[in-house]
Amino acid sequence: MSTVGNPANIFWHENPVGKAEREKLLNQQGCVVWITGLSGSGKSTLACSLGRELQSRGKLSYVLDGDNLRHGLNKNLGFSPESRTENIRRTGEVAKLFADAGLICIASLISPYRKDRDACRALLPDKKFIEVFMNMPLQLCEGRDPKGLYKLAREGKIKGFTGIDDPYEPPLNCEIEIQLKDGVIPTPNEMTEQVVSYMEDRGFLEA
Amino acid sequence: MSTVGNPANIFWHENPVGKAEREKLLNQQGCVVWITGLSGSGKSTLACSLGRELQSRGKLSYVLDGDNLRHGLNKNLGFSPESRTENIRRTGEVAKLFADAGLICIASLISPYRKDRDACRALLPDKKFIEVFMNMPLQLCEGRDPKGLYKLAREGKIKGFTGIDDPYEPPLNCEIEIQLKDGVIPTPNEMTEQVVSYMEDRGFLEA
Repeated sequence: MSTVGNPANIFWHENPVGKAEREKLLNQQGCVVWITGLSGSGKSTLACSLGRELQSRGKLSYVLDGDNLRHGLNKNLGFSPESRTENIRRTGEVAKLFADAGLICIASLISPYRKDRDACRALLPDKKFIEVFMNMPLQLCEGRDPKGLYKLAREGKIKGFTGIDDPYEPPLNCEIEIQLKDGVIPTPNEMTEQVVSYMEDRGFLEA
Repeated sequence: MSTVGNPANIFWHENPVGKAEREKLLNQQGCVVWITGLSGSGKSTLACSLGRELQSRGKLSYVLDGDNLRHGLNKNLGFSPESRTENIRRTGEVAKLFADAGLICIASLISPYRKDRDACRALLPDKKFIEVFMNMPLQLCEGRDPKGLYKLAREGKIKGFTGIDDPYEPPLNCEIEIQLKDGVIPTPNEMTEQVVSYMEDRGFLEA
């Protein structure tokens, strides 16, 4: 016997206005810029700077921040492996909706596991998922420790902290890698320029 | 001992670009148009027509359809009372993000329980949640039965179907009520005009 929950009873409603129409209105192409890396690696800094630069060019972007989502959509999730995976899954699904709406969605999450990031990539059409890897040494991130979390992790007051007692799996085929240049951290402007150039070259900043 | 999951360790990152800046870029005000009503009451029809009208006016909207979300963000939810509540909660949280991004977010869900809708309303700033009640008689919705679901419910092949063996709680203070006029269903254009007029009068269609 079927129930309301039977997938056969859940219909698909085509959106009345197509993605292409929204993109034309915005003169840009909807996509996801997924920024991954250790705590303290500069994800929020890049997200912030990139958002500002896009706005100054008249482009509509929106930052999905992992911490912020845990205050809302994902507030009923903890930090078990299953919860972390669900946290990333939901974020990926929302990022997909934003890209479909025509926005440049900037997702900023540690997202330590490769399979979780790849699952998000698989939600997006070809080339619309731009993975940005903040490839900064752990020592540097820990030295910055902007939230004081590494200290707590080293003291054993936080368990399962990425980079300390939980692994970070670097991307194998990311679109953009932000790294030290001659041992120096790039400035926010330099990082932003690297991402914006990538997007410009591939036509994301026009419809 | 604190853990990563300690709320004290989840920081809030201010979005680099404010809602007002995005609204200025779009020349509109971010908000949620929440369309509630029985299956077959015309929610999707209105969502579709409203989306088209807004696009034709150069306004950026996006439809969050309850059925569609169950294929993605909410695909791990069933139809128990708890799952229905979580389904609405997540939709409300995503709608809030879209409104914050500056879009006119059109949410189209049966959303039968008043407390669930009111919880979504509470997520939005004052006046940014526009509840539209499709106040159509059950008999009419059942007569239309566009998905054939009422038939299955009457045959007992679907359990817990809203309006048949699960309650629909009409809004007490909705912003807009769509109803029969002299016993006749309003046309999609008439319904859309009613919503657009409301939005225009309150300045939603300019920044």
